[in-house]
Amino acid sequence: MSENKAQIGVVGLAVMGKNLALNIESRGFTVGVYNRHRNRTDEMMKDHSDKKLVPSYTIKDFVDSLEKPRRILLMVKAGKPTDAVIDELLPLLDKGDVLIDGGNTNFHDTMARNAKLDKSGINFIGMGVSGGELGALHGPALMPGGQKEAYDLVAPILTQIAAKAEDGKPCVTYVGPNGAGHYVKMVHNGIEYGDEELIDESYNIMRNVLKMPVDDIAKAFAEWNKGELSSYLVDITADILTRKDDLGDDKSKPIVDMILDRGANKGTGKWSSETALEGGAPQSVITEAVYARYISMMKDERVAASKVLPEETEAISIDDKKELIEKVREALYFGKVMSYAQGFEQMRIDSERYNWNLKMGELAQIWRAGCIIRAQFLQNITDAFDKNPDLKNLLLDDYFKDISKKYQKAIRDIVALAVKAGIPVPALSAAISYYDSYRAEVVPANLLQAQRDYFGAHTYERVDRPGNYHYTWYKEQ
Amino acid sequence: MSENKAQIGVVGLAVMGKNLALNIESRGFTVGVYNRHRNRTDEMMKDHSDKKLVPSYTIKDFVDSLEKPRRILLMVKAGKPTDAVIDELLPLLDKGDVLIDGGNTNFHDTMARNAKLDKSGINFIGMGVSGGELGALHGPALMPGGQKEAYDLVAPILTQIAAKAEDGKPCVTYVGPNGAGHYVKMVHNGIEYGDEELIDESYNIMRNVLKMPVDDIAKAFAEWNKGELSSYLVDITADILTRKDDLGDDKSKPIVDMILDRGANKGTGKWSSETALEGGAPQSVITEAVYARYISMMKDERVAASKVLPEETEAISIDDKKELIEKVREALYFGKVMSYAQGFEQMRIDSERYNWNLKMGELAQIWRAGCIIRAQFLQNITDAFDKNPDLKNLLLDDYFKDISKKYQKAIRDIVALAVKAGIPVPALSAAISYYDSYRAEVVPANLLQAQRDYFGAHTYERVDRPGNYHYTWYKEQ
Repeated sequence: MSENKAQIGVVGLAVMGKNLALNIESRGFTVGVYNRHRNRTDEMMKDHSDKKLVPSYTIKDFVDSLEKPRRILLMVKAGKPTDAVIDELLPLLDKGDVLIDGGNTNFHDTMARNAKLDKSGINFIGMGVSGGELGALHGPALMPGGQKEAYDLVAPILTQIAAKAEDGKPCVTYVGPNGAGHYVKMVHNGIEYGDEELIDESYNIMRNVLKMPVDDIAKAFAEWNKGELSSYLVDITADILTRKDDLGDDKSKPIVDMILDRGANKGTGKWSSETALEGGAPQSVITEAVYARYISMMKDERVAASKVLPEETEAISIDDKKELIEKVREALYFGKVMSYAQGFEQMRIDSERYNWNLKMGELAQIWRAGCIIRAQFLQNITDAFDKNPDLKNLLLDDYFKDISKKYQKAIRDIVALAVKAGIPVPALSAAISYYDSYRAEVVPANLLQAQRDYFGAHTYERVDRPGNYHYTWYKEQ
Repeated sequence: MSENKAQIGVVGLAVMGKNLALNIESRGFTVGVYNRHRNRTDEMMKDHSDKKLVPSYTIKDFVDSLEKPRRILLMVKAGKPTDAVIDELLPLLDKGDVLIDGGNTNFHDTMARNAKLDKSGINFIGMGVSGGELGALHGPALMPGGQKEAYDLVAPILTQIAAKAEDGKPCVTYVGPNGAGHYVKMVHNGIEYGDEELIDESYNIMRNVLKMPVDDIAKAFAEWNKGELSSYLVDITADILTRKDDLGDDKSKPIVDMILDRGANKGTGKWSSETALEGGAPQSVITEAVYARYISMMKDERVAASKVLPEETEAISIDDKKELIEKVREALYFGKVMSYAQGFEQMRIDSERYNWNLKMGELAQIWRAGCIIRAQFLQNITDAFDKNPDLKNLLLDDYFKDISKKYQKAIRDIVALAVKAGIPVPALSAAISYYDSYRAEVVPANLLQAQRDYFGAHTYERVDRPGNYHYTWYKEQ
């Protein structure tokens, strides 16, 4: 091990790669850096000439610049660009080297790459990275999955660069084998979609049912952020709603009103819903959030429809605005609990499907800081799984049972109010329907099974005895 | 062309294959029949010795028994069994022969098989078949997709065996190239999931909010079946709810109460939601129906949860039961309109994605009879697309606009009522939220885009000028 060798290398110096490299360097490590186009490398070296960075301009020099076993963090685009870099690196690597893919990769791809590289003795870690640019620089949440022995080789670096929760614990853990890390990052992003949609519906209710000015809504979110809803997303929402336009003619307008309401997505929320459908997990809140983005994208259609589709709604008389604002808060929190209950249920189901042995408590723990969904609330989830690591559903934990008891009246009232007022609440509605389904001893799927047996002879099970039965609905012809 | 040759052959003589073969024979065709295990063939020949059936006991004899170009209908299990039969047949076929897969095949598989076989000059049609066993025998709805010239070769048979709508038109048409037929069958099944869930939620509301006896609910459905809700599924629901248990000790109990409420699924509804997510189609009603089945499968968890999860609901005072029953009917019809609007929207989106040039009006037309979702209502959809083949969304047609106007008050009231009473209404809620989103000129995705720009510098679009912008939310560090 030469003194001049770098302890880890980073490939791909766009903002996430650059910031992670600087984060690692700031913890006392020497970092090899390489980018396909040298201008990014030059720029980084110019801006950070005082840092322990070892630039390379060919992939071979880059590999040679690293200590063995080599630790290489790939921060390139998911998909073909990732494969291209791996193909270039592979002939230059030695058995026992560790590749870490920190991109937004689909976990199925990570599973395939891990299996393929494992045959050449190369370790492959798929690592979810959350926290955006600033998180990458100052402390992201990290979700690495792959060979355990490979994780042990990189753990000393990862634990230092990760965000630290209030109790000082780093927001990184060994998630599980092969695709487990990228899988958990995908669910994290799905949950993030759910959080955003629930916040946006709450905003919409305050704006268009309670008819509150944007400034007052900002104050409500700021107030909420001091309590049990305290979280990064509620915090930035409060901040956003105070901001005025910086470009238009009228700089007194809230910036939110100047922003086009087409909600883009980069696919991870969609993957998470597709995976839920595949695995049999009823992940309705997040899926409604994905669909809400899809409808939002149909801007031209919506504008046209808004002019011709009839509206028959109730005029809502607001008696006690303060009380209603509090109900919106409670509904939002209840919705959030359902969304996380579904997300953790999905992880439990998929952990079994893929033999990952995910530790739910540790996952909640590493989301407490650094990542986009960081929130006080994740401590409650951590506590719930600490108390009972085999908890089947978050809702069965005492804290969440208590929330469900206290706030369900509010979400029922708010959903009813919004539906009558003509304001869409797909995620809040899905949340209360999930709760009412999950706590229902009998759901009307008995009628469904009768229908299926009637038209397709699919048979049915009985409540009083085991086995499959077919009812003689009509004379067979 | 020998007099003794069969005009079409059927491989796979389980109930669907057998009944389709008998249906074809009944129209005057000679049908070659083959099954992997000869006992099924023997049984069929014994039961139908008077029919123009030509049995074969080897695949070679079967192929030799057919007129050229050969027309072979595969009625075997989707997946590997289908591939196995194709592999056996392929060396025995000639260019221009037509294979028809009438199984429940995923359209992606059909696209791949069509492309692969096309290279050998073999035509491959993927055909959706709906109507269950009786439909297969007396007249199913058929959704064939593949080479147009291959369709023309089998059209004389398919048009004869298909169900006939009230105007005498056969429920079959050329759907489109490669996987279009199986794709449309998949959406049909998704819509069927939606219909069933909406009916089951309506039943549940009458049972558990309006506290109606099962017999009265049966009467309500029977009454509804005489009007605009007239459909096969409403009809059999009315029938089911009159039926008593045939096995238990107390034969006076409604059979529905003896059926276990675990709603099974064979995957096509799930595929349809996965495809909607993939293509960007906001198909929330059907997806909630899929998730409702998933929750129903968690019977043990639900029973346990029902004992410990708190319930805080409102006691509903029923003033005018008759009025409320009518509102449930209107809510159900409104929900159905939304579900079909979403399903046809999904087909429009995917028709563009896959270059299928689907004719929406013809699809509504061939669903009017024979299939599980057959309903008077499909004539209204047929009419809508007759009037405007380029209709972007069903809701924009005058008939459906009128329904939306007349019934939206009812669905708002019923959803509010059920949510307050603690009865899950995921599909009905999704329906009204879809309507309110689709007709919203502005949805809160402007706040979403602000959030995404804040934490991830994803940029935003503006309402007043083109381009992508980034707001300076905080000083970059």
